[in-house]
Amino acid sequence: MTDTPELVTALDLPAVDPLPPETAKYFAICEEKLGLVPNVLKAYAFDIDKLNTFAALYNDLMLAESGLTKLEREMIAVVVSSVNRCYYCQVAHGATVRELSGNPELGEQMVMNYRVADIDARTMAMLDYAVALTEASAKVTEADRDILRGHGFSDRDIWDIASVTGFFNMTNRLASGVDMRPNAEYHGAHR
Amino acid sequence: MTDTPELVTALDLPAVDPLPPETAKYFAICEEKLGLVPNVLKAYAFDIDKLNTFAALYNDLMLAESGLTKLEREMIAVVVSSVNRCYYCQVAHGATVRELSGNPELGEQMVMNYRVADIDARTMAMLDYAVALTEASAKVTEADRDILRGHGFSDRDIWDIASVTGFFNMTNRLASGVDMRPNAEYHGAHR
Amino acid sequence: MTDTPELVTALDLPAVDPLPPETAKYFAICEEKLGLVPNVLKAYAFDIDKLNTFAALYNDLMLAESGLTKLEREMIAVVVSSVNRCYYCQVAHGATVRELSGNPELGEQMVMNYRVADIDARTMAMLDYAVALTEASAKVTEADRDILRGHGFSDRDIWDIASVTGFFNMTNRLASGVDMRPNAEYHGAHR
Amino acid sequence: MTDTPELVTALDLPAVDPLPPETAKYFAICEEKLGLVPNVLKAYAFDIDKLNTFAALYNDLMLAESGLTKLEREMIAVVVSSVNRCYYCQVAHGATVRELSGNPELGEQMVMNYRVADIDARTMAMLDYAVALTEASAKVTEADRDILRGHGFSDRDIWDIASVTGFFNMTNRLASGVDMRPNAEYHGAHR
Amino acid sequence: MTDTPELVTALDLPAVDPLPPETAKYFAICEEKLGLVPNVLKAYAFDIDKLNTFAALYNDLMLAESGLTKLEREMIAVVVSSVNRCYYCQVAHGATVRELSGNPELGEQMVMNYRVADIDARTMAMLDYAVALTEASAKVTEADRDILRGHGFSDRDIWDIASVTGFFNMTNRLASGVDMRPNAEYHGAHR
Amino acid sequence: MTDTPELVTALDLPAVDPLPPETAKYFAICEEKLGLVPNVLKAYAFDIDKLNTFAALYNDLMLAESGLTKLEREMIAVVVSSVNRCYYCQVAHGATVRELSGNPELGEQMVMNYRVADIDARTMAMLDYAVALTEASAKVTEADRDILRGHGFSDRDIWDIASVTGFFNMTNRLASGVDMRPNAEYHGAHR
Repeated sequence: MTDTPELVTALDLPAVDPLPPETAKYFAICEEKLGLVPNVLKAYAFDIDKLNTFAALYNDLMLAESGLTKLEREMIAVVVSSVNRCYYCQVAHGATVRELSGNPELGEQMVMNYRVADIDARTMAMLDYAVALTEASAKVTEADRDILRGHGFSDRDIWDIASVTGFFNMTNRLASGVDMRPNAEYHGAHR
Repeated sequence: MTDTPELVTALDLPAVDPLPPETAKYFAICEEKLGLVPNVLKAYAFDIDKLNTFAALYNDLMLAESGLTKLEREMIAVVVSSVNRCYYCQVAHGATVRELSGNPELGEQMVMNYRVADIDARTMAMLDYAVALTEASAKVTEADRDILRGHGFSDRDIWDIASVTGFFNMTNRLASGVDMRPNAEYHGAHR
Repeated sequence: MTDTPELVTALDLPAVDPLPPETAKYFAICEEKLGLVPNVLKAYAFDIDKLNTFAALYNDLMLAESGLTKLEREMIAVVVSSVNRCYYCQVAHGATVRELSGNPELGEQMVMNYRVADIDARTMAMLDYAVALTEASAKVTEADRDILRGHGFSDRDIWDIASVTGFFNMTNRLASGVDMRPNAEYHGAHR
Repeated sequence: MTDTPELVTALDLPAVDPLPPETAKYFAICEEKLGLVPNVLKAYAFDIDKLNTFAALYNDLMLAESGLTKLEREMIAVVVSSVNRCYYCQVAHGATVRELSGNPELGEQMVMNYRVADIDARTMAMLDYAVALTEASAKVTEADRDILRGHGFSDRDIWDIASVTGFFNMTNRLASGVDMRPNAEYHGAHR
Repeated sequence: MTDTPELVTALDLPAVDPLPPETAKYFAICEEKLGLVPNVLKAYAFDIDKLNTFAALYNDLMLAESGLTKLEREMIAVVVSSVNRCYYCQVAHGATVRELSGNPELGEQMVMNYRVADIDARTMAMLDYAVALTEASAKVTEADRDILRGHGFSDRDIWDIASVTGFFNMTNRLASGVDMRPNAEYHGAHR
Repeated sequence: MTDTPELVTALDLPAVDPLPPETAKYFAICEEKLGLVPNVLKAYAFDIDKLNTFAALYNDLMLAESGLTKLEREMIAVVVSSVNRCYYCQVAHGATVRELSGNPELGEQMVMNYRVADIDARTMAMLDYAVALTEASAKVTEADRDILRGHGFSDRDIWDIASVTGFFNMTNRLASGVDMRPNAEYHGAHR
């Protein structure tokens, strides 16, 4: 964030300046660990309370203990974002799928059409459930949950699948609603 | 929550027992202020971190300072939940629209077809934007945001409309994905 | 209907004045039995032949002898009107479901998402058929009718389900096409 | 209706036998005037009250006095039935459009894609309104009615457009719901 | 093609004049065999290379050796064109289905709703696959191909079904994209 | 194509062996110029006539003289394939957009949501037309073509836009219908 800050959304909502020490430290850690501060965090930085509640929810869903691996959660992220055609989330989380899986082709498949991916039936069922919830959540019934249980998912796993699916249905609307732009670094990463 | 706790979701995820003191206090406050503990909070009570991050986000979006009134935010909540046909959210937030507006008919209109409501053009534009983001977020462009600006919404207001819209697109998927059931008390309230 | 008649549609089509004696008597019976003259009848009163043919069809479908109970027919009415998001019909027939079932929650479920209702498999199959006919009638085949037969519905019952489903697909278009407004009394009734 | 009656629907609902004198006379008139008894009437003949209420509504909408010509009403019939892909109604009313217009190509266009027809802007607006009501009635608003008014349609005309549109949305569901089959004679007629 | 050439598309793209001898001969053969030069060929005649590549593909797909009969390929043509509501292709290939089958009703059913046709389960499965590919090709999976194999279709047959389905998804977009008009002679043919 | 040929489709359709000299030469040229033989050509190689007619059409549409640049035609290819979520075509033509534009981000935008791309209004109008034809070709009218003309596209350009749009609507169905797999080399190319 230099003299001419890059555009991160279509809205004129500048970050608080200077950032509070805790936020500055958080961004520095991102820079160090990821090589960048994700634009979604910069976009939220106009209101530190909003930034913190968003980051807390993100960390709980995507990084905390779960029966789902981090890669599984990221695959849900990309598939949901593909259904909704969210540019920001497909770019950012597509890169993470490539990174976590070490399989660039898998990342592309989650973006383009997850049904062609060479994944096991359990993972496909998980993604099918995420897509069903994304496309027509009101039509999901106990029969759909029983398919997941038949593949060995626990009720807690089902909660987590629904929560991650819900989360990206939220961020997709926010990102598209404000035209959020992904960091350029994601495009070439882990290819 | 007595001997036979009512069913709040289709999942077997019992609340931590006993609840931590802060959570117990939070639930007691709900009981006192609202006459009930919203089932969504009971549903989350199997994991106190998840409960807290959800509650923090909810409070920031629906109760904190915003250019949107609380009623406007609740109208978005119901209209989004109507598009997604989420039973829990239509019931719970429909009751709040009836309460805040003192107009039971308005609550019904948000549930059944917001386009018939006798609301001003500015409010209708806000709901149209929420619906566009809900139905096909990828098709929303700057032209849609300019319609909002033409009705006097600031860029910060647009962020808030997109955020509230996103939030209920999340909760709708979670609620339908776990078959969350609303408290029975909502049905007759504020009729 | 006093000096300033309430608005029942967006069209300028005043009732014939005075009403013919038979119509006046019919309206008086409605007032006595229901406490109101349904606005759909007032809307049709600009042409007594149209009013009479509509009323005759309504009475035959919803009140005459059938293998379907009156409550079952009203449940179809609300579910079809929910798919089509018809404000008038959801309000008026939602009230009737609440009245006939003595279960306000059931009325709400028919409006908001019938799939969450605690109804038996036979009734759910009936509503699924009504929804399939409403959403994509050309895709309904003998396999769908065989599901109904498997739940014990006779061929005459299938005719009645299709007829009632068809009828509300008609009234939903008429009501939305002329912006018909429901009587205010329905909103608070049978809550 | 001889020894082996042709199949008119997928349901086992034989006509009352013998037909009441008035019905027999009505069918004889059809035979004389049209050269056939429309299968929809034979299908209804298991219950003479239902037959009579249906016929009365049909006659009022399609044959009685209206600002819309009979051809205009039949064009709406076919276009609505094309959106819903109802085999019975496209066949039967397609033949009538060919007959009334003396233009076989127009009948095909109403069935296949009304937007390619060489009709005036007023007629196209009428059909656009019928299609909007058929595809998504809840999204129709006063702005749509004002387009009709701008083309010279009166409020009474708008009622009739909405009524005819609604009627075929009803019959399409009934016909598809019971697999009603059109009389074979329609296919080659007025080509 | 006389002084006032008939309009074949909405574009101002006159045929090369004079036609090269080979093209003139090809058109003369069409005239002799079919009684007309199909308008699609006249439309392409502004560029002889385009005409030739189109005709070569058409001939390979629709006329060359295949496990599918010519009638089966024409049925796919009409059903795909019906899903896409392409006026040109429904008219031209509907006539061919009537001709090849000697069954005018079958031609109408392919246009109006193929699901009502009295065809065997194998043919219906073929058309279901063509429709699935047309409506949502990305959702087609190996399970769909296995249904075809279960009806006795070879892998080569599946290629041909997919190719013919694809071809009409192409021509439907081209025809609608340039408003291509069918030869008037098709309408009354083989009724 | 060595001892264990890679899988290019889900169908068991081996290439003719040995390839005819002209085809072998064509494949050798591909290998030399592109570094690979596109899998679509290998897939077609079970029938040399089909291969040749496909290649001729491809070459005419994508490589021959046109008012559209090669990049513009490739952008249409990817955007159409994104609407249809065709894995093969998004991968192969996404790589070409990256190559021809020298802008990897543009390739991603065509795949993920073309509406966010920073392209001029003329190019956006071209892609909007391609998407309209892909999603609902029957709803495209002269008004849509006039928008293109207003941006300076000639009638010949409109033909080419419709043709390229149609072509990828064909290949998308074929590729998904046979589960065609793209060459692995595309994934990392031109990033």
